[in-house]
Amino acid sequence: MRTKPTPSYSILVRMQIAREPGMIGRISTAIGNAGGIIDTIDMVSRTDTMSIREMVIEACSTEHQREIVDALAQVDNVYLLKAEDLTLKYHLGGKLETGCKLSLAKREVLAIAYTPGVARASLAIKDNKALARNLTIKRNTVAVVSDGSAVLGLGDVGPEAAMPVMEGKCQLFKDFGGVDAFPLCLDTKDPDEIVRAVKLVAPAFGGINLEDISAPRCFEIEQRLKQELDIPVFHDDQHGTAVVLLAALYNALRIVDKRIEALKIVICGMGAAGTACANILMEAGARNIVGYDRDGAIYRGRSGDPAYLRAFAERTNPEMEKRPLGEGIRGADLFIGLSAPGVVSQDDVRNMARDPIVFAMANPVPEIMPEHARPYARIMATGRSDYPNQINNVLCFPGIFKGALRSNASDISEPMKLAAARAIARLVPDSELSEQYIIPSVFNDQVAEVVAQEVERVARDTGLARATVDDNSLCNLDL
Amino acid sequence: MRTKPTPSYSILVRMQIAREPGMIGRISTAIGNAGGIIDTIDMVSRTDTMSIREMVIEACSTEHQREIVDALAQVDNVYLLKAEDLTLKYHLGGKLETGCKLSLAKREVLAIAYTPGVARASLAIKDNKALARNLTIKRNTVAVVSDGSAVLGLGDVGPEAAMPVMEGKCQLFKDFGGVDAFPLCLDTKDPDEIVRAVKLVAPAFGGINLEDISAPRCFEIEQRLKQELDIPVFHDDQHGTAVVLLAALYNALRIVDKRIEALKIVICGMGAAGTACANILMEAGARNIVGYDRDGAIYRGRSGDPAYLRAFAERTNPEMEKRPLGEGIRGADLFIGLSAPGVVSQDDVRNMARDPIVFAMANPVPEIMPEHARPYARIMATGRSDYPNQINNVLCFPGIFKGALRSNASDISEPMKLAAARAIARLVPDSELSEQYIIPSVFNDQVAEVVAQEVERVARDTGLARATVDDNSLCNLDL
Repeated sequence: MRTKPTPSYSILVRMQIAREPGMIGRISTAIGNAGGIIDTIDMVSRTDTMSIREMVIEACSTEHQREIVDALAQVDNVYLLKAEDLTLKYHLGGKLETGCKLSLAKREVLAIAYTPGVARASLAIKDNKALARNLTIKRNTVAVVSDGSAVLGLGDVGPEAAMPVMEGKCQLFKDFGGVDAFPLCLDTKDPDEIVRAVKLVAPAFGGINLEDISAPRCFEIEQRLKQELDIPVFHDDQHGTAVVLLAALYNALRIVDKRIEALKIVICGMGAAGTACANILMEAGARNIVGYDRDGAIYRGRSGDPAYLRAFAERTNPEMEKRPLGEGIRGADLFIGLSAPGVVSQDDVRNMARDPIVFAMANPVPEIMPEHARPYARIMATGRSDYPNQINNVLCFPGIFKGALRSNASDISEPMKLAAARAIARLVPDSELSEQYIIPSVFNDQVAEVVAQEVERVARDTGLARATVDDNSLCNLDL
Repeated sequence: MRTKPTPSYSILVRMQIAREPGMIGRISTAIGNAGGIIDTIDMVSRTDTMSIREMVIEACSTEHQREIVDALAQVDNVYLLKAEDLTLKYHLGGKLETGCKLSLAKREVLAIAYTPGVARASLAIKDNKALARNLTIKRNTVAVVSDGSAVLGLGDVGPEAAMPVMEGKCQLFKDFGGVDAFPLCLDTKDPDEIVRAVKLVAPAFGGINLEDISAPRCFEIEQRLKQELDIPVFHDDQHGTAVVLLAALYNALRIVDKRIEALKIVICGMGAAGTACANILMEAGARNIVGYDRDGAIYRGRSGDPAYLRAFAERTNPEMEKRPLGEGIRGADLFIGLSAPGVVSQDDVRNMARDPIVFAMANPVPEIMPEHARPYARIMATGRSDYPNQINNVLCFPGIFKGALRSNASDISEPMKLAAARAIARLVPDSELSEQYIIPSVFNDQVAEVVAQEVERVARDTGLARATVDDNSLCNLDL
């Protein structure tokens, strides 16, 4: 059985088509028979006897792209002019470029923004480092740092292959949060070297977004950088996921009318995201969490566990649950999956407590597919855009950095994360809240600003916001 | 005596002016009497009784800005509304931003350029690293790396204060060469750490432009990076200066009708630029170069010299000149200054050979001012934009990197630099060549492309260009 066609394998086909009745029908039928889904059909040009059209067609694989093109080539009176893989085409030359706020290729600007004028900006910062925030890109620029060791679901692909993802992340920072970001993919997996490299480049940046660094190294790297740098450091795979999950949970609990303190929570998958989700849930009041990894339930004294899992066990599993997941999930109110496809069965969901909440976030195939969970799960969320309730980090990181940068915060703290989760949750109004809608769309254009405002407010209230030099007082002469 | 007003200290003054005869005259006179130079006068709005205007006025210093504003405040029927320091204002928030080639905040793009589509680009690169050039920003992106140790003429200002200069450099790359560049200011002066940090970030970049790193560390850092990386590494303070100087010399020699092999050359200043200029001159055929530093002439066996000066001495000063500069310059055809203001006197120039060529490039005040050298120097060049013949690196680095990136060169070699110098020189046509015009203007918009083409040609001819995967063969399905 073929998988479903996706935009990942879209092709753009340009063809010359005779102008006679039934042509679009024949072409569309050929595509449909080949298993392709038509996305767009555009007219490029036409004469009395023929038209040139471009179609975007979703396919399942490169082989399937080939099959669709071959099927089109068989249609009478259709001549293929071009067939392109759209995903690769969109990546040609990379996705980012340098934007200049003003062009220096003008005589009157060159002397001010480059030599000799630039020396005044440099000297001002030399005399007062805080002015880096006023006179350089620091105040709105984040480094997106990865070692390419845990990229998407692909694993350790290395720094070069991580770049398309990090470039995309930088685009999301800009498009969704107005935050400038630049990707730094490091050619090392050694935590000491990663920490050192980030510290060396840090002066230019207002924040560090760690990305796709595998556990457990990511914990140590983030912890050390948070201690040693005076700018926010945030491992998005951990905390972005955790914040958005908590936002979804806040709204889910409004529907099922339960309190977070009373929940029995099962988390499957103890990587970066799993541990971070457990942490934020405990910050938010959760008391009964049991974590599972490949070896089963995590409990105090389990042998062979690394330090971070031993620390996790100290804070969770109050009843010393040791049974396998299929037993442990009985009576649970909330299942959180950050692991692998298929680890949860329909029976497992049936065995949960009243009104089960299932957040199955393995990508691209969740721990249980929504259609399988549906008969028993009251509320279901995944990481996918093609089902309701997508738990997507982009709801968090652009806004949380925007707020942290705006307040010149030295850190992104637990209270700031909780505030971000509450802000995201509140964007779903009571009148629209339902089992199918517990989390705003990633295309809701209020999200980043609302999150930023809440994060900024908490940064100020909790003393993490730092004073800054006012731009006007720096530039304006007293009159 | 006050120095000359410059755009570095320009102020923008907004004022409300009564509509009566003589106002602009009184205002302009007040500015002139205060020593300011009026740049622009713009009308913002007007009524029957008053106008609001903005004037840009060049001043000499922040104190002088104050004096001009105070003088304007004394003019009857003029009310100052605002006075801003333009240089600081232009730097607010920094000068660069992230440009996204396409917005991901659109549903149909997000799935292709970010998850899940982006995984295909990552996997393609994982399978074949060479595709990083096709599918990431690598092929057109340069890192501008500094430790802030030798910034402009300011010395060791540190990484934060170096940022405005490096941001400006990145703008020049983009505006003049169409090359994307990003500044990395490193918080260390240790060569091992700098080398290591650059190697760690290198996978994402197509080239490394080292900038404003003090000698002699810059020599070791560049040398090691050139050996250890497979992308071009270029210390612009050295080689950019050397290339443009050689271009100027080629044209000067056409005027004075001398051959480079026959020149007696004196170079004053043995920092990064001075040694690089000597090297390129020898590559170009020069045989008689004597270098001077604070301790006088550099010769074989001079005691106390560091390794790079001992190596320099081995290749220069064939007649073992040991006398001071004032003696050594007698009979020289070419003086090159990369040192400090005032080290050369009018008498020194008079004592040079027939048709002396003086390239006095200390910034902002040259070794001898053109008006002092004029009676005796046949051809004079400086680093300044306010005299003829400005030797400015921006004539070189955007084009040389553009050519290197386009040819996927593994290095920027000596032949590529010589080709760049010849290309720059040839942009001054015979018909326009004169003592006052031996080097094209930085605003000549042909420069970068002409340099790039020559550099690319040499890279291909000398085997430094590397094969690349064709974009079309990567994206297009066979028909």
